Amino acid sequence: MTKIAIAGAGAMGSRIGSYIKQAGYDVTLIDTWPDHVQAINDKGLEIQTETDTYIVDIPAVLPTDVTGSFDLIIILTKSMHSEAMIHELKERDTIHQDTAILTMMNGLGHDERFAKIVPHEQVFLAVTMWTAGMRGPGQILLEGQGSIELQRADGQSDERTERINKIFNDAGLNAKISDNVFQSIWSKATLNSVLNPLCSILNKTIYEFGSYEYSRDMVTPVIDEIVTVAKTRGVTLDAHAMLEKIEAAYPKETQGLHYPSMHQDLYNGRYTEVDYLNGQISKYGREANIPTPNNDMLTHLIHQLEMKYVK
Amino acid sequence: MTKIAIAGAGAMGSRIGSYIKQAGYDVTLIDTWPDHVQAINDKGLEIQTETDTYIVDIPAVLPTDVTGSFDLIIILTKSMHSEAMIHELKERDTIHQDTAILTMMNGLGHDERFAKIVPHEQVFLAVTMWTAGMRGPGQILLEGQGSIELQRADGQSDERTERINKIFNDAGLNAKISDNVFQSIWSKATLNSVLNPLCSILNKTIYEFGSYEYSRDMVTPVIDEIVTVAKTRGVTLDAHAMLEKIEAAYPKETQGLHYPSMHQDLYNGRYTEVDYLNGQISKYGREANIPTPNNDMLTHLIHQLEMKYVK
Repeated sequence: MTKIAIAGAGAMGSRIGSYIKQAGYDVTLIDTWPDHVQAINDKGLEIQTETDTYIVDIPAVLPTDVTGSFDLIIILTKSMHSEAMIHELKERDTIHQDTAILTMMNGLGHDERFAKIVPHEQVFLAVTMWTAGMRGPGQILLEGQGSIELQRADGQSDERTERINKIFNDAGLNAKISDNVFQSIWSKATLNSVLNPLCSILNKTIYEFGSYEYSRDMVTPVIDEIVTVAKTRGVTLDAHAMLEKIEAAYPKETQGLHYPSMHQDLYNGRYTEVDYLNGQISKYGREANIPTPNNDMLTHLIHQLEMKYVK
Repeated sequence: MTKIAIAGAGAMGSRIGSYIKQAGYDVTLIDTWPDHVQAINDKGLEIQTETDTYIVDIPAVLPTDVTGSFDLIIILTKSMHSEAMIHELKERDTIHQDTAILTMMNGLGHDERFAKIVPHEQVFLAVTMWTAGMRGPGQILLEGQGSIELQRADGQSDERTERINKIFNDAGLNAKISDNVFQSIWSKATLNSVLNPLCSILNKTIYEFGSYEYSRDMVTPVIDEIVTVAKTRGVTLDAHAMLEKIEAAYPKETQGLHYPSMHQDLYNGRYTEVDYLNGQISKYGREANIPTPNNDMLTHLIHQLEMKYVK
């Protein structure tokens, strides 16, 4: 039977893990937060939905206590902790020569970083529209529906891809195998690279940001840089479609009243994932000799604010 | 005898006006703040220095109460109020055909805006390193020394230039006639266009801003844009010298512990002068087909914050 680990069992990892567990698979949650691991082991994972609260029994473990190996490891840590997580899992012999390491994190460049630690053909990429919230140790809040796209990072087709896709669909996670997952990853990263830093720098909701008469003049050059850089990486993005998606988030009826996740990280005293969004775009830009002044400036402004807010 | 008006008698206007008055000239302060005008007329202008407090008797008047005409009008309002002030003074016949209208405000493009209201040959430009603080209505705080450079805005030499220069030097204001006042104006505007918006957006002191490991990477592209735009306006700036001046402001022993004036405006609920700094650079850039992404972004971020903080 396929042995599955969720490495990084925050809100999203717990959602994905609990869905797969409920579909009858062998799932282990791996997380660095001792209280969370303890609570899940003591009382099960408590899941609150819009209509219901229920418990899923699922084993949880600290990375330093992991034993045995896995056939599928889904990486859902914060981006900056993912490499340390894989190093730890590798040292503890949890990765065998067929283990699929699937990153489902936001941001760009994860596959390249992972391929420096494990063979490239073991790395899989996924992008998801599922969301989740954390209520406390062992307690998550689930709203809405989502989907998953996945592909092997080197673009090859693979029997494992089919197997992972089946697991996700058995779990009701609405998955499909993509022949260009980078397209979706970059598309999501574009949205995140615009509203995340801008709303964080300004300490504004998405609606408040969009209420500025010239918000389009702010957003468009950031998008244009990303579209240009994406092209050097073989990814074609539609700048107009990106703009439309961003502007569709402004109304109070959609996501307008929310602060993006980066805002929550920053003002709760945590480092942000800006280096995996705007910062990674700047890096790719430098490699391709393409200037990315907007993404550079946004990255620096967020790092300046991290100096101020991260405890 | 030369009749002199200070239009905009805030801290700086009051300093300049009181110095000239004490040198024996006929000076009138013009200001839109009724309490300030009233206090000066009732009790004189109270000046506190590092060592002394004294009163200067000097007439003050609201713009709508001005009578008679002036030979020299020194404009020291906030940038965004200067055109309304000149319109008012013009309508009230205080400007005759020889009146020198001298702007000593921070920022770029004032001469062009003024030359749309009064003949170009009546417009004079000055840049000053004098500073001043306001303690309350009719009360100012004076520290440090300064200097003034001046020139007729169209570059022509003029007997009035000599006369204004003499007035300033009689008043101990350490003035000189420049043959390239734009150089000094742009140089000062460069410093203001870097630290003013960045420290305001980040809500950081100059020292805190400079403490970021990559502050030079943030500052350099903003300077480079200004240097490139300045060149299209016939002004040659030294990017390296600009960088050195900015970095010289970081230490706690120099200006490090201060917030720039734009920060004070913003967080005290007032509109900033960003449109006359970064915003004007962006405008000149558009006219010359030179991209100014950094100055554009900084301008927009400040306007977004004005939406949040200006009452």
